[in-house]
Amino acid sequence: MTDTVRVPCDELRALTHAALEAVGVPPADAADAGDVLWRAQMMGITTHGVRRLIPYIQRIHDGAIDPNPTIEHVRKAPSITVIDGGNGLGPVIGSRGTAEAIRLARETGIGYVACRASHHFGPVMPYLLRAVEAGMVCFMGTNVQPVMAPWRGARLAHGNNPIGFGGPRRDGYPFLLDIAISVVAFSKLRHAKEAGEPIPEGWAADSAGRPTTDPVAGMGGWVLPIGGHKGYGLALAVEMLAAGLAGGALGTEVHGLFERGPRAQGVCHFFMAIDPERTIGLDAFRDRMEVLCAMMHDTPAVDPAEPVLVPGEPECALMADCEANGVPLPAQWLDEIRGLARGEMPRSMPEA
Amino acid sequence: MTDTVRVPCDELRALTHAALEAVGVPPADAADAGDVLWRAQMMGITTHGVRRLIPYIQRIHDGAIDPNPTIEHVRKAPSITVIDGGNGLGPVIGSRGTAEAIRLARETGIGYVACRASHHFGPVMPYLLRAVEAGMVCFMGTNVQPVMAPWRGARLAHGNNPIGFGGPRRDGYPFLLDIAISVVAFSKLRHAKEAGEPIPEGWAADSAGRPTTDPVAGMGGWVLPIGGHKGYGLALAVEMLAAGLAGGALGTEVHGLFERGPRAQGVCHFFMAIDPERTIGLDAFRDRMEVLCAMMHDTPAVDPAEPVLVPGEPECALMADCEANGVPLPAQWLDEIRGLARGEMPRSMPEA
Repeated sequence: MTDTVRVPCDELRALTHAALEAVGVPPADAADAGDVLWRAQMMGITTHGVRRLIPYIQRIHDGAIDPNPTIEHVRKAPSITVIDGGNGLGPVIGSRGTAEAIRLARETGIGYVACRASHHFGPVMPYLLRAVEAGMVCFMGTNVQPVMAPWRGARLAHGNNPIGFGGPRRDGYPFLLDIAISVVAFSKLRHAKEAGEPIPEGWAADSAGRPTTDPVAGMGGWVLPIGGHKGYGLALAVEMLAAGLAGGALGTEVHGLFERGPRAQGVCHFFMAIDPERTIGLDAFRDRMEVLCAMMHDTPAVDPAEPVLVPGEPECALMADCEANGVPLPAQWLDEIRGLARGEMPRSMPEA
Repeated sequence: MTDTVRVPCDELRALTHAALEAVGVPPADAADAGDVLWRAQMMGITTHGVRRLIPYIQRIHDGAIDPNPTIEHVRKAPSITVIDGGNGLGPVIGSRGTAEAIRLARETGIGYVACRASHHFGPVMPYLLRAVEAGMVCFMGTNVQPVMAPWRGARLAHGNNPIGFGGPRRDGYPFLLDIAISVVAFSKLRHAKEAGEPIPEGWAADSAGRPTTDPVAGMGGWVLPIGGHKGYGLALAVEMLAAGLAGGALGTEVHGLFERGPRAQGVCHFFMAIDPERTIGLDAFRDRMEVLCAMMHDTPAVDPAEPVLVPGEPECALMADCEANGVPLPAQWLDEIRGLARGEMPRSMPEA
């Protein structure tokens, strides 16, 4: 293990921008995309934080991701825009999609943006937060390469397709929910293997689709969907909302971020924003949200040491701590990111 | 057990309309609402099918549900309408919400309708099917009375808040996904109790919030959310999208359908429709959906006797069978519904 250092917020932010600019990403796009990773890091989403600069930059070097793509926006209807990302960086296209959904929602009450020809865009939560900071309620999602089998099926055919919902509150941190439709992330199988521990029933199936408590067998198979057939259905709904409406790659047509070579991923996303001001009014909406959240907080806890939380609260508390005290980061990561910001090549691809 | 009879489709449909008209529901509303229950019955959703006429009619007699309410539609923005249901029948307000979302989507590409002061609207699937028959992609949901505890919490505070997604296909039955955010329905605990069998881990918690495999202990507690904290977050997202944006009752403010007396439920719903014609075109969208569904169908099955399906296929196949061969119904139910259609009082309230 390496030492953990606290990096001042602004310093880490500037490093993410510089690292992307160093491989030809235009400054405004580098700022948008860097901010996604930087905020994810501060929210404690370390798997999708600043270390994701490494695969992004590697895939730019590979010729898979275009650092300066032609991004095609077509406004198809008063409330709908379809974006072709030109195989650009996921967080660049994700940032455009979010901004466009907000713009449409201001005009017509709700905006829907479907994006194709993108790449892995990181976690959903930083995009949710941008929409919520603009006063919007939002629903977003993305497909990813196939890492799961359909319900009853014995071969990979769809992603764990993350979705997210967000909404402003009045007193507390915003409501922010960012979930993949698998029970757990694949990395939890790896951690169990490294610890030599079995995994709980319901986490994974082996390569024949049989339920397993052996992390190694699960790593040869796939993680299982939340609620069984329910999560499978949600994965397909995300494919429909993103790739179906954008006319992009879906299911097994989507490729992995951690592949090598010039083949683009073809990921699709969707971004929906609703302006509560155009429903019952933003103030009245905030009141309703506080009533809801108070009901949850007032529920007695099963374990008094673990009170009931509302989604978004732990992540926003971590972010506030980072803003005050700097962002905790393994010293080795910081060293590597500083190298990237100087234009050095990534040292090696991290595991997915 | 009673005998099962096959009732001709049209006969059962007419009975549902007559039963609602008999308690003062205007004919057009009775047709809309009756069709929801009738189609649910044909889709095999028997818990939310024609037998739901009994609680609806009982609650009209109780003065809780207004059979002929003043329903207030306010178009708040080009793409948004908020409906106050005036404590009318859920399936009447659900039908209005669906129709309005389709109308808005035809104008602006996407329509969003939030409804308050409604009642339990039955299953989501019949509303999804209406939107899909109009060529729309859709996302809908509803809150219900509190039947679940928040994650980490030890008291009921929110519903199992069903959601649904739908979309047209080209060759196959439409994509229709209707799921509650609990792992199982409460009725499965009752069935396990009646069979004297334990329930699997992960289905339910006892009244102190401890996981249990005892169906009786689970019935004194609550069913658990899909994906643990993920399903809890989804339940709150539905509260936000329905009650938050409609300005209606949420969480513990919502009352049960199977209560007695004049207190209205205060249920809220939301209905979203997107016109694929205003994205990549309906034909191109249908093609993408068939590619997706073929990928799923082509996946080898874990058990060859149970091939991979796409959500909506089993329900639509059952519906087609009912259209051809009549709707299977316990003879006693048919007898009771005929009585309701003649204006008789319900004989007793079924269990929730």
